[in-house]
Amino acid sequence: MPAPTEFLQFVDQNADAFIQRLSDAVAIPSISGDASHRKDVFKMADWLNDQLEAVGVETQLVDLGKHIMDDEELQLPPAILGRIGNDPKKKTVLLYGHFDVQPANKSDGWDTDPFTLVVHPTNGQLIGRGSSDDKGPILGWLNVLQYHFQTGKELPVNLKMCFEGMEESGSEGLDDLVKREGSGNGGWFDGVDCVCISDNYWLNTRTPALTYGLRGLTYFKLTVSGPSRDLHSGVFGRTVHEPMTDLIHLMGQLVSSTGKILIPGVDEMVPPPTEEEKAIYSGLDYSIQDIQDAAGAAIALSDDKVNVLMGRMRYPSLSLHGIEGAFSGVGAKTVIPAKVSGKFSIRLVPPQTPDAVNPLVIAYLQSEFAKLNSKNKLHIEDLHGGKPWVADHKHWNFEAAKRATEAVYKQSPDLTREGGSIPVTLTFAETLGVNVLLLPMGRGDDGAHSTNEKLDRSNFIEGTKLLGTYLYELATV
Amino acid sequence: MPAPTEFLQFVDQNADAFIQRLSDAVAIPSISGDASHRKDVFKMADWLNDQLEAVGVETQLVDLGKHIMDDEELQLPPAILGRIGNDPKKKTVLLYGHFDVQPANKSDGWDTDPFTLVVHPTNGQLIGRGSSDDKGPILGWLNVLQYHFQTGKELPVNLKMCFEGMEESGSEGLDDLVKREGSGNGGWFDGVDCVCISDNYWLNTRTPALTYGLRGLTYFKLTVSGPSRDLHSGVFGRTVHEPMTDLIHLMGQLVSSTGKILIPGVDEMVPPPTEEEKAIYSGLDYSIQDIQDAAGAAIALSDDKVNVLMGRMRYPSLSLHGIEGAFSGVGAKTVIPAKVSGKFSIRLVPPQTPDAVNPLVIAYLQSEFAKLNSKNKLHIEDLHGGKPWVADHKHWNFEAAKRATEAVYKQSPDLTREGGSIPVTLTFAETLGVNVLLLPMGRGDDGAHSTNEKLDRSNFIEGTKLLGTYLYELATV
Repeated sequence: MPAPTEFLQFVDQNADAFIQRLSDAVAIPSISGDASHRKDVFKMADWLNDQLEAVGVETQLVDLGKHIMDDEELQLPPAILGRIGNDPKKKTVLLYGHFDVQPANKSDGWDTDPFTLVVHPTNGQLIGRGSSDDKGPILGWLNVLQYHFQTGKELPVNLKMCFEGMEESGSEGLDDLVKREGSGNGGWFDGVDCVCISDNYWLNTRTPALTYGLRGLTYFKLTVSGPSRDLHSGVFGRTVHEPMTDLIHLMGQLVSSTGKILIPGVDEMVPPPTEEEKAIYSGLDYSIQDIQDAAGAAIALSDDKVNVLMGRMRYPSLSLHGIEGAFSGVGAKTVIPAKVSGKFSIRLVPPQTPDAVNPLVIAYLQSEFAKLNSKNKLHIEDLHGGKPWVADHKHWNFEAAKRATEAVYKQSPDLTREGGSIPVTLTFAETLGVNVLLLPMGRGDDGAHSTNEKLDRSNFIEGTKLLGTYLYELATV
Repeated sequence: MPAPTEFLQFVDQNADAFIQRLSDAVAIPSISGDASHRKDVFKMADWLNDQLEAVGVETQLVDLGKHIMDDEELQLPPAILGRIGNDPKKKTVLLYGHFDVQPANKSDGWDTDPFTLVVHPTNGQLIGRGSSDDKGPILGWLNVLQYHFQTGKELPVNLKMCFEGMEESGSEGLDDLVKREGSGNGGWFDGVDCVCISDNYWLNTRTPALTYGLRGLTYFKLTVSGPSRDLHSGVFGRTVHEPMTDLIHLMGQLVSSTGKILIPGVDEMVPPPTEEEKAIYSGLDYSIQDIQDAAGAAIALSDDKVNVLMGRMRYPSLSLHGIEGAFSGVGAKTVIPAKVSGKFSIRLVPPQTPDAVNPLVIAYLQSEFAKLNSKNKLHIEDLHGGKPWVADHKHWNFEAAKRATEAVYKQSPDLTREGGSIPVTLTFAETLGVNVLLLPMGRGDDGAHSTNEKLDRSNFIEGTKLLGTYLYELATV
């Protein structure tokens, strides 16, 4: 069922007011990672709660307890749980978003004050911290709800909402809430039929996208130690086993220059792509030039766009991040470091999990270290990890989003997987046991965590239409 | 010709006064590497100049000009040139030492004030910055001269002296002076028959040593760059050539875990040791336990002491020092660094020189990089270097020192080569074209650049006897 024409007109007619509301939201510097701004995250929660109540949402602020940040005990900002509609004949959709933002200072290189929304005079971009990540999408939902509230129109589905204020700082407290209220014991999340998260981006600047996968992660710290203190390379060079030599050998055995993971069994866990899957990547509006523009150099691993996109989205990757304990300054220092720790991470895809991959990593490193016949000591730590997520993109939840995209944008969405992680996605998918859709509002160049973050005016306005239309399509798929 | 018994008695009888004079010298914090102490280096030059004049040395303070340190233009401390005796029938010996010291603060971990000489109540160690490096040895010469001056005895050789105040900061200005005055054009160093430098250490704490070799150095910075900025490993992992992966591969191809240099032609430049040479190493008073005690762990590359000592003294070594530009902090960061620079150095032995070795290193790295088929860019820089030095240890200069050692210590000296560098040694050897002897006064555990630097009382007193006896033996070898 398409959205009512009146809804689409309402959005266009109220565009300036919607942008003003986004400006009010951006003006609250709700930086969750900065203790001195914690009060602003609370302020943002109150502001959003007021806005939701004003459009008829029944809300509650959920206390998530305290946490320690930078040696300081702080109250966590509340999660906002909202609901509107309770018709057993309708589907119930859970919407997720976050009202906290990344840090931003003009001195970081912003052209304008990050917490004053600026409408670019020519291209219409809405520039300000949080415009795209994730206040714009949350306000898209508010826009949709405002139409229904002001016109007295019934929503085509029941809505539940979960908005949090700690996403940029590890979503502290949220997992517990979802697990407590979503495990089928009569909790608040019971009855949800599907989830929609609008907190990622199109692959490019041209084509709307639906996202059905995220990679997981396992992060390792690999420590080789030997002497009791740093040694002079003149005195000790070629007399002792040097930890740095051993570590570099081990790190050099992890991944090839072309990205192949050399740890036996890791790449092999992942089944080859089906022809149908390959067709998805082939059909994506993306080019080698796009990736090289994004990286700033002609360094793509392949000239074949399908290979490169699969490298990002459906294959695991291993990156070497750095070394702790070795000389890292400018200039020349001739020390033999006593203890060095290499850091690397593996992005995981199904069916890989940290539990399945870590033993292979550890066994391989131990075996490679044994080959060195070194008298130094090896210590391997798994610092953190998370499972990958892939949804069924043929589910009615995706089908509704696809129809909505075609209705609003007159083009089929790219069907994408992300190379990174949004951990709450997996929490909802696993805890609630329902299909989760990532429905991005912004473009690939929005600069979510960067300077001059922006949301294109058209993405905000057409994106609002998309979110509303999606609800109508959901009702009839 | 043995030293006169009266000389040996004089040294014993004046030991306390000698220690008091060392105490006066240590009290002047002549730290050349700290601009705020530059005045103290000048003060130390004046103090030493006065002491030399007081025992009959004809001196001159040579202005070495200015230099820039920490963005500040500073006057270099003067070199002191001294001479005593000008008998054409006698050999002329050039003595070298330095009157500047390494920085030292009690807060670095010293048990006592570094600039107050403390005589340890039980073991007699003379503890203070510069006690061993290099004020003790310079004062050893003063002690010898005092005997001859006070008793009116003629010295058995002509002496020239060159004492500098910038050794701990790269001997700035000294090379120019030596080359200007030592190249055979009627300069001040003309007529020198041999050189004696007392600025290194015994191999252990038990056996006096004569040192006839030093390793050279070539230091490389190896930069791999690709993207225009750091990248997110979720988004770019397995889509682009990662500079860190390439760099780690290259660094892993340089040296084996057992110390073999993998750059073709580098190890091969060095001829195998002769049986006579092996006998020297075999005869050194040194054990695998000694090196493992010094390193603080059982990590020696071999159980064979000759192999380990040759690894330090007569073979080149390659050490990996660190990486600039990669994540080096604690914790976990998932960035793909855009530009990373690996640092490594090779200690060189004859006939290796930076000029001979560097082209092999560069060609090898370029060839290994080509094998990676990476689209990243490689840039190789040779940051600095110096040639190795080996003297003829059968020269009469060494023979005199050997006889002197046997006379004073009743044991044959270890014949050692050092793994590190003392660049002025090579300057004297090459410019003056004469034999250079390194005649250490202190022990291997003196902690020259470390906290609680010390010189054993017996090394100072017997060392004074050794220096004087060496001059007498020189006269007749």
